[in-house]
Amino acid sequence: MKCRICRERAAIQVRRHNANFCGHHFVDHVRRQVERVIHDHRMFDQTDRLVLGVSGGKDSLALWDVLTHLGYQVDGVYLHLGIGEYSSEGLGYSRRFADDNGLELKVVDLPGEYGFSIPEAAEATRRVACSACGLSKRYILNRVAHDQGYDVLVMGHNLDDEAATLFGNVTQWNLDYLGRQAPVLPASGDGLVKKVKPLIRVAERETAAYCVLRGIEYEVEECPMAKGNTVNRYKEWLNLLEEDSPGFKADFILGFYERGSTAFEGVDKPELGPCGVCGQPTTGETCAFCRLRNLTAVRLSSKGAP
Amino acid sequence: MKCRICRERAAIQVRRHNANFCGHHFVDHVRRQVERVIHDHRMFDQTDRLVLGVSGGKDSLALWDVLTHLGYQVDGVYLHLGIGEYSSEGLGYSRRFADDNGLELKVVDLPGEYGFSIPEAAEATRRVACSACGLSKRYILNRVAHDQGYDVLVMGHNLDDEAATLFGNVTQWNLDYLGRQAPVLPASGDGLVKKVKPLIRVAERETAAYCVLRGIEYEVEECPMAKGNTVNRYKEWLNLLEEDSPGFKADFILGFYERGSTAFEGVDKPELGPCGVCGQPTTGETCAFCRLRNLTAVRLSSKGAP
Repeated sequence: MKCRICRERAAIQVRRHNANFCGHHFVDHVRRQVERVIHDHRMFDQTDRLVLGVSGGKDSLALWDVLTHLGYQVDGVYLHLGIGEYSSEGLGYSRRFADDNGLELKVVDLPGEYGFSIPEAAEATRRVACSACGLSKRYILNRVAHDQGYDVLVMGHNLDDEAATLFGNVTQWNLDYLGRQAPVLPASGDGLVKKVKPLIRVAERETAAYCVLRGIEYEVEECPMAKGNTVNRYKEWLNLLEEDSPGFKADFILGFYERGSTAFEGVDKPELGPCGVCGQPTTGETCAFCRLRNLTAVRLSSKGAP
Repeated sequence: MKCRICRERAAIQVRRHNANFCGHHFVDHVRRQVERVIHDHRMFDQTDRLVLGVSGGKDSLALWDVLTHLGYQVDGVYLHLGIGEYSSEGLGYSRRFADDNGLELKVVDLPGEYGFSIPEAAEATRRVACSACGLSKRYILNRVAHDQGYDVLVMGHNLDDEAATLFGNVTQWNLDYLGRQAPVLPASGDGLVKKVKPLIRVAERETAAYCVLRGIEYEVEECPMAKGNTVNRYKEWLNLLEEDSPGFKADFILGFYERGSTAFEGVDKPELGPCGVCGQPTTGETCAFCRLRNLTAVRLSSKGAP
């Protein structure tokens, strides 16, 4: 097995590209994939103020490293979700990476600033934690980006994440979600910052390999609250199909972005107005995050009452 | 395990409906599913002249039996594809069913009437046989239905067939095909007969069980030319997912018909005109069937030449 570029001994096989790479050229390959996505989808340029959602996992740290090496100045924002050791370790890995590379990391503490943790929200809503978590991340990361004057919020969703989300949306025919899944969500005047996903051409195992090759230490543990969640199940399914037909996942998600998504452009986009509580954009009177925050506060206080 | 209806010992389990049935009530259940589809999609009524594409397999014979018992008068048409023993056995099972039930079966002989068999077409086109076969079936069955004055052409595609086709079209984002996959394809003035698929709520194993319970003998062998074809691979994949999540296939295909397909309505439908050779509707100057027939004739004659 030899590297496609230099014919040295290859360390990494990328079956869907029918290619092998030595460590050096694999790192190059990942960076080129990211560069291509940024360029093809006109995500941002060197003049934009960029902030990256950082979790301390392989995807966000690999992306931070890639973007830095491509010459972009990117700040990070870590959202502490209050999921015990998992959260504090994620913060540790994020801080170390930022310090080692002279990068700025902002930290938002969900329990400290908003009064609840994800496990508490899950208990209060009696639903899977991933739902409250996704909602909180979308809300807070956008708010930080907006309030601190960033032009673009960068997210570390990889090819597997996007394919699994698409698979769920397609097999359940969630037309609304299908109409909104895109590599770039444009800014809207009412408070939504432009959001981009430069890792859509890089698979999960490739961000992991990138980190190992670059000596980046990251949180290896999966979130303890996400065990057996739907997206992970879809990922397992897609891995079975990918095993049988290498390139399946990439064809599915990239074909959607190239052609399929046009079918869902006509789906009605909801009108946004300011939330009556926090002022952030929402389709209703009170935004979903404020409703979650309020519900959790009520349940926590009634639990704590004598 | 008891029958959901009569509490007698159940013979058949339908996991996606979370229901068990005795033989008698399973047969009823299948008939009700078909009746519901005919009604919901306004497929036809007792006054329509109906012709069913019959292969001698479980799906078409089960459907013929169900429709007869629902009070519809349905003729059958068997297309002899010239695939050796497989074709002659399929004809035998079809004839026996028609004779036993006093039904009319028309037979079209592809080699005799059009000068080539499916294996010959596959060899001539150097492509998988299923492509020439599907094309020939669509062309000839529509032509028989049209020329003989039938109002509706009925097809025996089951839930698994439809889900596998949809899966292929969605994962490759074939927007044209997605815009045309439907339980009812309406008649068009230029020679296309209304085409309907009443088995879309009945799974493959259910038509097999129906035949066994009703004592209908059918061709059990799979077509020898279809081994390892793409649709069969998709079926295997979907069976894995169904195993993990009963109801997955039905949610996928029925959700598409209910909601998803609306997204593809805007896809441009091609204009049809008469084929310069046979006069049947086509998007080009010569229809795909006449091109296939001509290509096969040329290749066969050059092969036979000294």
